[in-house]
Amino acid sequence: MSPTAILLLHCPDRTGIISDITRFITENNGNIVYLDQYVDKQEGIFFMRIEWELAGFLIPKEKIAEYFQTLYGERLQMKFSLHFNDIKPRMAIFVSKMSHCLYDLLSRYESGELNVDIACIISNHEDLRFVADQFGIPFHVWSIEKDHSNKYEVEQAEIELLEKEKVDFIVLARYMQILSEKIIRAYPHNIINIHHSFLPAFVGARPYHQAYERGVKIVGATSHYVTEELDAGPIIEQDVTRISHKDTPESIAMKGRDLEKIVLSRAVKKHVECKILSYNNKTVIFG
Amino acid sequence: MSPTAILLLHCPDRTGIISDITRFITENNGNIVYLDQYVDKQEGIFFMRIEWELAGFLIPKEKIAEYFQTLYGERLQMKFSLHFNDIKPRMAIFVSKMSHCLYDLLSRYESGELNVDIACIISNHEDLRFVADQFGIPFHVWSIEKDHSNKYEVEQAEIELLEKEKVDFIVLARYMQILSEKIIRAYPHNIINIHHSFLPAFVGARPYHQAYERGVKIVGATSHYVTEELDAGPIIEQDVTRISHKDTPESIAMKGRDLEKIVLSRAVKKHVECKILSYNNKTVIFG
Amino acid sequence: MSPTAILLLHCPDRTGIISDITRFITENNGNIVYLDQYVDKQEGIFFMRIEWELAGFLIPKEKIAEYFQTLYGERLQMKFSLHFNDIKPRMAIFVSKMSHCLYDLLSRYESGELNVDIACIISNHEDLRFVADQFGIPFHVWSIEKDHSNKYEVEQAEIELLEKEKVDFIVLARYMQILSEKIIRAYPHNIINIHHSFLPAFVGARPYHQAYERGVKIVGATSHYVTEELDAGPIIEQDVTRISHKDTPESIAMKGRDLEKIVLSRAVKKHVECKILSYNNKTVIFG
Amino acid sequence: MSPTAILLLHCPDRTGIISDITRFITENNGNIVYLDQYVDKQEGIFFMRIEWELAGFLIPKEKIAEYFQTLYGERLQMKFSLHFNDIKPRMAIFVSKMSHCLYDLLSRYESGELNVDIACIISNHEDLRFVADQFGIPFHVWSIEKDHSNKYEVEQAEIELLEKEKVDFIVLARYMQILSEKIIRAYPHNIINIHHSFLPAFVGARPYHQAYERGVKIVGATSHYVTEELDAGPIIEQDVTRISHKDTPESIAMKGRDLEKIVLSRAVKKHVECKILSYNNKTVIFG
Repeated sequence: MSPTAILLLHCPDRTGIISDITRFITENNGNIVYLDQYVDKQEGIFFMRIEWELAGFLIPKEKIAEYFQTLYGERLQMKFSLHFNDIKPRMAIFVSKMSHCLYDLLSRYESGELNVDIACIISNHEDLRFVADQFGIPFHVWSIEKDHSNKYEVEQAEIELLEKEKVDFIVLARYMQILSEKIIRAYPHNIINIHHSFLPAFVGARPYHQAYERGVKIVGATSHYVTEELDAGPIIEQDVTRISHKDTPESIAMKGRDLEKIVLSRAVKKHVECKILSYNNKTVIFG
Repeated sequence: MSPTAILLLHCPDRTGIISDITRFITENNGNIVYLDQYVDKQEGIFFMRIEWELAGFLIPKEKIAEYFQTLYGERLQMKFSLHFNDIKPRMAIFVSKMSHCLYDLLSRYESGELNVDIACIISNHEDLRFVADQFGIPFHVWSIEKDHSNKYEVEQAEIELLEKEKVDFIVLARYMQILSEKIIRAYPHNIINIHHSFLPAFVGARPYHQAYERGVKIVGATSHYVTEELDAGPIIEQDVTRISHKDTPESIAMKGRDLEKIVLSRAVKKHVECKILSYNNKTVIFG
Repeated sequence: MSPTAILLLHCPDRTGIISDITRFITENNGNIVYLDQYVDKQEGIFFMRIEWELAGFLIPKEKIAEYFQTLYGERLQMKFSLHFNDIKPRMAIFVSKMSHCLYDLLSRYESGELNVDIACIISNHEDLRFVADQFGIPFHVWSIEKDHSNKYEVEQAEIELLEKEKVDFIVLARYMQILSEKIIRAYPHNIINIHHSFLPAFVGARPYHQAYERGVKIVGATSHYVTEELDAGPIIEQDVTRISHKDTPESIAMKGRDLEKIVLSRAVKKHVECKILSYNNKTVIFG
Repeated sequence: MSPTAILLLHCPDRTGIISDITRFITENNGNIVYLDQYVDKQEGIFFMRIEWELAGFLIPKEKIAEYFQTLYGERLQMKFSLHFNDIKPRMAIFVSKMSHCLYDLLSRYESGELNVDIACIISNHEDLRFVADQFGIPFHVWSIEKDHSNKYEVEQAEIELLEKEKVDFIVLARYMQILSEKIIRAYPHNIINIHHSFLPAFVGARPYHQAYERGVKIVGATSHYVTEELDAGPIIEQDVTRISHKDTPESIAMKGRDLEKIVLSRAVKKHVECKILSYNNKTVIFG
């Protein structure tokens, strides 16, 4: 894997953007290895993900963002982020009592499938410490009182830890607490949650019980970025599985767990590979 | 296909029901060709579908319901319906302007896949008369005023037609009007609708636009029995298809049409084959 | 829908192709409305579909191919085809006795979903003449003897008709005859077949029976371009559905028919929209 | 969970079997909590799974098999197996170098989802010892020479271990060796394999590479019982996922791993719950 730069950008649509940007890279000796773009015609916005090899590129790595901003960013009213494939993002995982999503993430991490560093696992319960221990990852517990009286100070402590650990993004792997604004605002489009329903159906608590009550024939799971409105952030990935009248809330939950872990891991992978652009509370997912 | 009787029943669960009923049939010389049962343990209710060949059955066809009621129905507090596979139910189809569900139903009917008689097609628009003409099926149009001022008399006329035509059940094949209580009550659990979303997500109007706005990654279609509450009746069948950020409301609608017609036709087939039992606003679907 | 030109091309990969081609279009005043490209890194081949509005484009429509060939085609060893969205391709449909795929295609055509002209329907049986009549499309029958003794002359007559009717591409909508080389060579990558299995499983005759015998839990359907090797051409689209031990060959075939018609129609749509590039017996499908 | 007995049986079909068997249980005071049956009409065979509570059942647990054989088994030419839900089967897992299926099984075991005892993990490589250690499960390694010269003695040692450990069934969790007859015959219908293709497509080695070469649009995974013919045993469960021309053999393998682990675990669960009956190289899977 040779070192590459990845540019994720969006701007008002106009003619010539693609040819401008590809020229910028090829004239500076960059070999484009990935290009995907999309135009939202209703909104008139151009989106692009472009990746090129850094070997031989004439602009030094640390100057690329500045040059790009000067030459194109301002003129084209562009918002962009620049990433390098040889810098691993640092991930924190929040869990409560259920282990399936955590095991799925950790076993992918262990086998090298997830190109991240795991800074720590944070929980409101001791239950999953043994899993963290199995994989040798620091595990921090802050219990939250039932009346939430200590929630503010817990989140304060968590934020301090996240900053100290230089965490880039957070994965809520069936974390059964609602995050407060403070932490959400500290990580915009960098907190990924798994909700165990096919959103927007069954927002909120106990979605499998809701599904059972309504008598649906298919249930789903949804991974999304966390925003201040509950279960309403930009959807990253969804998947579904069939159920029947024979299913109980318990058997639905069991089938659902297989969805949850796969759908969450897919979202984490897309995020880590810089293949997601968020806009207007939606996501553009590059292939 | 030899003549069979089909019994659909439910009653409070207790031991011995299966052995009672199978004995009733086998001791009277009936050869059971299908048996499926299900117990809802939460509610304590027993559900069954049993089908047997009439050739050699000792109880005359027209006496079976009476005997069964006397011998078991009362004692076991049973609700049951009795059907015969050689009596085709009579179906009416309601349509508006879109042809895909109508064509799908009619082409299955034409090829012998749907074991029904189609009594008539009813519409609030002239648009699809040519389809009815292609298949030689009576087409009746009653325009409904925008202010719904004539809705009462239109439905009155429709009910008279349905009665005259001895219609057993109604299929709303993308009929863009809400039926009033009168007609719903005349056909309890005998009106099948297709809603173009994965219910309970996106109830009501323009679900594909709602899906587009929310940025979901999967859309669905739902067939259900019509009850007085809009899009809230017992779900019969659902299916889904993937979409992406590249999809517009128009392309979502196009993909959705393929779901709608398949999901509606599956529901109609299950209904015609007496494989659906409704209970507590849910359905038990026998395999 | 404003008039557009569509360029489908592939060539050996090298740097600068995208910027060359997009510059060609934008410098000549074309507004790009679609661009998708893909590089097969194993083979070192670049693939592209690009579409732009013709209004205001400086090169006259009838000169575009020549200019593009002169300026880029030769230098880049490019193979390309040029299409215009306001010229409808002419389609011929071959059928035998089963109506489901034919009805599906015709009802989409009728509703305007398929942007084609249907030149004619060709069959080896009279059975589906009534469907052609329902839609007012010319229907031609040539019976083929069981010993295939007249197959050569039948295909000769068919080719004459196809030429006379200026047919651009052929759809085999469950046509139960194997085409000979002559007709296949006359329409390279322009004959679309639907095979009722998940290829490469169950090549050849009676795939649903084969699936039943093998005891698979999922069956599929595959649309592909026809090549001289049976059921081995480039795959365009596949889909699957679950079955169980309860399914008979007949019920599998019934479920399969729903797959076949959807999978065939999707392939026809992709073909008509010039979104398929064939290479090395595979397809690149643009989104 | 109260103690239950589970009877899995098949016999030639005739009238009265269901009523005979249900009477046997209810007359002896057993409360039936599960009944599912199926008739293969082509072969004339009746299949049944019936489960009842042992509390209050008049026949002692250890006598049930004998009584059932005497009263029904012989007369009805029945083959049956009797299981008790409070006796956990003992499972051995065979692995090579890939960890995803192993982690999936172990994390389900850890969370109590799989009602088994894991006797041991057996491998031909040291690579996954650390996973076994994480979960505290005995790990045994026997290297097999490239020329297979020691295969016989390795399998002999494995069989001795399996016997010593009283192993009931074996799961091949991406074990990259072909078992010899000896071990297959020792565990008829008790060795579950995961094959990383949608069988019968792509039998044998490197199925993802084969899928890539063929250009399929969907890949699958298949769990099946191991028989002496390679990849040809009774299929238990299959699932599929979409791929596109953009996928490389590596990305197909990555997507496939998610299928493999889910499809294998589902099969193991069905096996452990005594919901699989094998017959004629097919499986009947009870719901």
